[in-house]
Amino acid sequence: MAVYTEVSDEELQAFAAEYAIGTAIACKGIAEGIENSNYLLTTTQGNFILTIYERRVRREDLPYFLGLMSHLSARGIDCPVPVKGRDGNALREVCGRPAAIVSFLSGMWPRRPAPTQCHALGVAMARLHRAGADFPMRRRNDLSLDGWRALHATTREAADRVQTGLAERIERELATLATRWPRTLPTGVIHADLFPDNVFFLDDRLSGIIDFYFACNDFLAYDMAVALNAWCFERTGEFNVTSAGQMIAGYQTVRRFETAERDAIPALCRGAALRFLLTRLYDWINTPDGALVRRKDPLEYLARLNFHARVADASGYGFA
Amino acid sequence: MAVYTEVSDEELQAFAAEYAIGTAIACKGIAEGIENSNYLLTTTQGNFILTIYERRVRREDLPYFLGLMSHLSARGIDCPVPVKGRDGNALREVCGRPAAIVSFLSGMWPRRPAPTQCHALGVAMARLHRAGADFPMRRRNDLSLDGWRALHATTREAADRVQTGLAERIERELATLATRWPRTLPTGVIHADLFPDNVFFLDDRLSGIIDFYFACNDFLAYDMAVALNAWCFERTGEFNVTSAGQMIAGYQTVRRFETAERDAIPALCRGAALRFLLTRLYDWINTPDGALVRRKDPLEYLARLNFHARVADASGYGFA
Repeated sequence: MAVYTEVSDEELQAFAAEYAIGTAIACKGIAEGIENSNYLLTTTQGNFILTIYERRVRREDLPYFLGLMSHLSARGIDCPVPVKGRDGNALREVCGRPAAIVSFLSGMWPRRPAPTQCHALGVAMARLHRAGADFPMRRRNDLSLDGWRALHATTREAADRVQTGLAERIERELATLATRWPRTLPTGVIHADLFPDNVFFLDDRLSGIIDFYFACNDFLAYDMAVALNAWCFERTGEFNVTSAGQMIAGYQTVRRFETAERDAIPALCRGAALRFLLTRLYDWINTPDGALVRRKDPLEYLARLNFHARVADASGYGFA
Repeated sequence: MAVYTEVSDEELQAFAAEYAIGTAIACKGIAEGIENSNYLLTTTQGNFILTIYERRVRREDLPYFLGLMSHLSARGIDCPVPVKGRDGNALREVCGRPAAIVSFLSGMWPRRPAPTQCHALGVAMARLHRAGADFPMRRRNDLSLDGWRALHATTREAADRVQTGLAERIERELATLATRWPRTLPTGVIHADLFPDNVFFLDDRLSGIIDFYFACNDFLAYDMAVALNAWCFERTGEFNVTSAGQMIAGYQTVRRFETAERDAIPALCRGAALRFLLTRLYDWINTPDGALVRRKDPLEYLARLNFHARVADASGYGFA
């Protein structure tokens, strides 16, 4: 984590009293996540997660995120359920910042995802896409092509300090993706950040998906592209095509990819790699030294980007 | 915290299976403490704390710390209780590091301690001293005069980069304390790190004391000197003599300080301030940038040291 905002006991007690969740008896900052401050809140009724939304999350987006979690959970997706206050509102304020309490999900995220876990994620992703189909709100993906261009503009100078030639490499990639990015593919609600630390397992059973704060409406297959990047590279850099094939196979037990989606996968994977290269670059430059955050190496995603640029077609990702 | 060691789900399940505490269903790194990696471990039986001991804690000291917590808790002190594994041992290993599971304590630490809370701490400290009287193990305080000299030797050069003249100021203080440090005062088991983040409250009731990893045998009054430093300075630097008087009064409802202890308080407070000045200085210099730790300003304790150096006698701390 990330604990940017410190909550005093008085503030916490007053905040908890706005809910019918019992009395707060403990509250500990969690050392995971980087966007928001997360606390494990224990009350006389059990464990909850208190999230305080920090600057990077736009306040006007919060009803979409919280609404989506409620919507998905009502359709049987295991995800945090926003808890409504006594007045019926889930989105509240503590320490002058927007905040919400959500249900606590059991499970641990896989430090080294196994192919069986990739399969389970594929299944869960497709179910999530299906469950999101009738979610009425819309949010555009502000971390797609236009957003990447904007990130590139602010990180361009620093990029070359991280690695000589990096700015130019990103520029070229943006130009390539501008021509190759798909125009029409099936769209819907996507999670857009399906990294292992957002997916909980109890043994090999997927027990829940968390952190919907990048969720948006975009190509469904882009969610797969993000997850292929996030789950299928070994720590040593190799692409694990068995894991990838399992993830895709899992997905297709629920929803089959169309031919156009299949064909678009290499470009979508390049785009996803570029997205994390750019946001990590941005974080690398902009994380204050005192923040309780582990900065992630942007160049890891340059290597992944280079991998995808060499893949000829979807078979390179283990499409059966 | 500090999460230095990452535990995988497989490692955790195997570790939890060594105990009769149910099945692990969640495990989250806690963003508090700086010495060890702390996890909030949720099992089918409830919440526990899993601590993985990092380099700074000496392995051979762990039986003292764990034994002390068991001893104190058996005498009615609210502190974490080490949970024994199925083989009867509380001290175990995970990820190749020593580790222990302790009971979860309710309560929150006071961000801005009130005088009533200082009083409650005084009472609890004296009870702890009393309960520790028959603890059979011994551990010398390696962060007393000799330890400070050693810390000074390793931080001397860097000290002047933090503030010009700081190395010389520390040197003078070490010389002064060498003559003024008491030789004979009542000794016993002390916590030695009674900071607000180690003391939990539920409303104004003190619900527990945690983090016994500096506990040792030393002057009982030195525990009070640490706590006066840690609890009774406002954020703006002023010494709150009301809080100090309350803490001392609370203590004396259980155990009266002897005249020699009273007289020694100003010197003990100087020593305690120097101890935290030196360890913070050391941490300031030696904390790797990527560590999930908020570095604390050493100079805060220079100001406190200077305050104590100007106090004439114990009445300056609100002794009634």
